[in-house]
Amino acid sequence: MCPAATKNPVCELLDIDHPLILAPMALTSGGALAKAVTEAGGLGLIGGGYGDANWLETEFVNAGNARFGVGFITWSLAKQPELLDLALSRNPVAIMLSFGDAAPFIAKIKESGAKAICQVQTRKQAEEVAALGADIIVAQGTEAGGHGAARGLASLLPSVVDAAGDIPVLAAGGITEYRDLVAAASLGAKGALIGTRFFASDEALGHPNVKTRIVESTADDTVRTTVFDVARNLDWPAPYTVRAINNGFTQKWHGNEGALETQKEEIIAAYPGAVASGDVDYMGVFAGEGIDRIKEIKSAKDIFADFIKSPSPW
Amino acid sequence: MCPAATKNPVCELLDIDHPLILAPMALTSGGALAKAVTEAGGLGLIGGGYGDANWLETEFVNAGNARFGVGFITWSLAKQPELLDLALSRNPVAIMLSFGDAAPFIAKIKESGAKAICQVQTRKQAEEVAALGADIIVAQGTEAGGHGAARGLASLLPSVVDAAGDIPVLAAGGITEYRDLVAAASLGAKGALIGTRFFASDEALGHPNVKTRIVESTADDTVRTTVFDVARNLDWPAPYTVRAINNGFTQKWHGNEGALETQKEEIIAAYPGAVASGDVDYMGVFAGEGIDRIKEIKSAKDIFADFIKSPSPW
Repeated sequence: MCPAATKNPVCELLDIDHPLILAPMALTSGGALAKAVTEAGGLGLIGGGYGDANWLETEFVNAGNARFGVGFITWSLAKQPELLDLALSRNPVAIMLSFGDAAPFIAKIKESGAKAICQVQTRKQAEEVAALGADIIVAQGTEAGGHGAARGLASLLPSVVDAAGDIPVLAAGGITEYRDLVAAASLGAKGALIGTRFFASDEALGHPNVKTRIVESTADDTVRTTVFDVARNLDWPAPYTVRAINNGFTQKWHGNEGALETQKEEIIAAYPGAVASGDVDYMGVFAGEGIDRIKEIKSAKDIFADFIKSPSPW
Repeated sequence: MCPAATKNPVCELLDIDHPLILAPMALTSGGALAKAVTEAGGLGLIGGGYGDANWLETEFVNAGNARFGVGFITWSLAKQPELLDLALSRNPVAIMLSFGDAAPFIAKIKESGAKAICQVQTRKQAEEVAALGADIIVAQGTEAGGHGAARGLASLLPSVVDAAGDIPVLAAGGITEYRDLVAAASLGAKGALIGTRFFASDEALGHPNVKTRIVESTADDTVRTTVFDVARNLDWPAPYTVRAINNGFTQKWHGNEGALETQKEEIIAAYPGAVASGDVDYMGVFAGEGIDRIKEIKSAKDIFADFIKSPSPW
């Protein structure tokens, strides 16, 4: 997809064959999935999530000898900045920052030799991270599973490309098939960040029930909500919400957040058990709008191969 | 863009040169704007809106001898079905139905010789209108200005294309430039429905302050809200909301709908005066996410010409 002659800037910056990056899905994008995506010719980003050093150490081991990057939730990293040092000590190809002020971290990332990938949800954020020296900018549309914001990818992407100047932009949010890559490229993206499609893979961490629910659901049945952050006792700042598949929990609490607040202690206590048992009518099943077109769970290698068709979009 | 050899199905069905359709923006897409778009080679749809027969009669006159179509808000049309007869009496090229059950109207439209264009916001709606015999389906993403729903165009469009089978699909929501057409075509669209870009035209109805606000604002500063429907005393069904540019009114009332409800009589009384005077800090300025890339008000002819580049996306 990226022969040297094309000089795709994402392939050059990250030294990879295809500009397709695994989204660092918290608790889902572990070392095994990152390794599989890297070995297929892209780059796997391990989900640094809310910063559990032991979890990270384990997943670095699970990545084996494969090259990888690490993604952090920026506002969470700000509370535990030592986790960036831990990640950088493993010589990651890149560090991705999302959801918060990247300013305190970019210089350290770049000085280490890793590339700084900054994910944005608005045009204004793109202008900010471009000024801060981001190496790559990810334009994440509202279609994305898990945390994100309101702007639709089809309009956000060209606006971010315009704001980014010479900095290459990746498209994110609902990227599921080759045709999505072609569309993204025509709006100026130089590659893509892919989450939910890789969630429904053999290598992704997470209960089998969750993967099955993703395959069986339609995107019409997803919602952006805050109720699962309340249930997980996570203090996410506005305007971020999670896109999740509607279930018993959203039907009960979404739009009813005042009542949820009054019962949250009990719910916070019950939530880990629901996750452990794969109770997909209670726990959040985070998934993007691409699920209309995700029909089966398969290996990350096979998923990756489905994206690679001719003519190359890049 | 659509030479006979390409057999673009939208051009064939509507007998036009370019598969670019003016969105029937209520109180904005009048006869003069529809005429300009038709004369440029597309098709102008007059905004039937909430069904004012006198307004429609005036705009039919303003369309002169140009071919045109008419768009209706379906749930509103259901309350005044005689307006469809009025529209059909003028031999429109097409009738577009959005936001409600198209079933009671499609047969009558098709029997008249007009084409039935059905706009959808979900994959399920696409399946429904395909089964009902829609001639053309519009996939409207959340990026759209004015009324719409939650799904992002980049993921909705391929899902609607898959559901539509042989029925041609138009992309809608934030369509602003040629590159948007190329992206839409790569996801399977056979044309596009364009609203906000034509709002910022000389011919669009509406106060000059509104057009100026559109040109000066960014899409980061828009919101999907119900507050302007309350202010206009319009009983819109869920899940539809309007995308509007943030202003004093949204800052005061969006997220504060309970209080708005208690004061709505006064607000409903004040609203028409705000519209008449072009008070854009009070009235709703409905605009899609394409406004990042709308830099000037100009003639509909010039706007149309900007979309027509080589190679043709269709």
